[in-house]
Amino acid sequence: MADRTRLTRKPERGSGSDRARLDALLDEALVATVATVDEGMPWVVPVLFARDGDRVLIHGSTGAGAMRQLAQGAPAAFSVTAIDGIVVAESTFESSANYRSAVLRGTFAVLASDEASRALDLLSNRILPGRTHEVRASLPKELAATLTLALPIEDGSWLYKERVGPPGEPDEEHAAWCGVVPLAVTAGSPQPAPWALGPVPASVNALVAAYPAPALSDAGPGPV
Amino acid sequence: MADRTRLTRKPERGSGSDRARLDALLDEALVATVATVDEGMPWVVPVLFARDGDRVLIHGSTGAGAMRQLAQGAPAAFSVTAIDGIVVAESTFESSANYRSAVLRGTFAVLASDEASRALDLLSNRILPGRTHEVRASLPKELAATLTLALPIEDGSWLYKERVGPPGEPDEEHAAWCGVVPLAVTAGSPQPAPWALGPVPASVNALVAAYPAPALSDAGPGPV
Repeated sequence: MADRTRLTRKPERGSGSDRARLDALLDEALVATVATVDEGMPWVVPVLFARDGDRVLIHGSTGAGAMRQLAQGAPAAFSVTAIDGIVVAESTFESSANYRSAVLRGTFAVLASDEASRALDLLSNRILPGRTHEVRASLPKELAATLTLALPIEDGSWLYKERVGPPGEPDEEHAAWCGVVPLAVTAGSPQPAPWALGPVPASVNALVAAYPAPALSDAGPGPV
Repeated sequence: MADRTRLTRKPERGSGSDRARLDALLDEALVATVATVDEGMPWVVPVLFARDGDRVLIHGSTGAGAMRQLAQGAPAAFSVTAIDGIVVAESTFESSANYRSAVLRGTFAVLASDEASRALDLLSNRILPGRTHEVRASLPKELAATLTLALPIEDGSWLYKERVGPPGEPDEEHAAWCGVVPLAVTAGSPQPAPWALGPVPASVNALVAAYPAPALSDAGPGPV
């Protein structure tokens, strides 16, 4: 994070343990931004995505300009950030955020036919686990209207950074409360459409379970 | 969002009502990504930020490469995205996400002396309302180590998109549950550091109150 954050772990490229953290972030975050260069100027679009082993998958309309540009091999910077907490220190200068962030650089490849179809199922099931078993298969015309792209996760082409834990211990006299306010993306109760059939399905319950609220206790919090 | 999202509102530039929505998004989101072009290649970094009227403010270490590049006037694309829900339709093709996203294009200006100091206070108080009244003022050496930058919000230089509401009503026979799973960034209980002094302060309570969990009811959800 381009702020006064203390990195508890230095940025590294391609180390084994950071790769596991990268994968965990990619498997948790719901949205990424893809930055490209358009006539010399920076551009960026948000996308839903899914990790599939050593690559990330995105999809979009064949009519979307950014997707077409990526499909033509434009260099991309794919970025994911999770804010895990606000770090409240004894001064504003030492205050910061707990976060995990990753940038993957490279060019996307276009997936075709069966591979694209499998990738789209994976994208659906990443967010709503098992959803493809609850609804009909995609139609040929739907597949034809969709661009499905894959960006490889290659050693040396990605960067992972994080800050975790409490603020640093003050080295000055102070009179302030210090600590961390946890933050997390949280799911609420599913809201059925008027034409919804049947009970809330397993896929939706799995989504809700995957994004619980951080602990919020009226009895007072515990220590960091 | 570069996916199969139906836009309920077409992207517009600079219209009055969209400007209000843009401001609401900028005042709610905690993190942005700033994309730049570095030797012809796209690059992107996450940043904390605050809106200050017709501009957004960011700050970072004078030693950070991306900040120095921005300070030298590099063109930037500043992007904010909020995921408000997963839209579960009768097919994976029609499924989507509710979201709000904005991109601001332009070049950042470097703020100096008093203006930088005020901007840094605004950045602190944006996340922790009133925090600057609870801790000592920033020191000259802290201000000297910090780059504070402002990007104007100018008509014609920003884009706002959103998708809201339930899935579209199916035009085909189906047997699926359809609806929306709300998502929101949620704060948990403040976790005091061992050296925290006093009760949880007003600034921290205000942060927690600003990011409540979406409704989650065991009694079953209501309709969309």
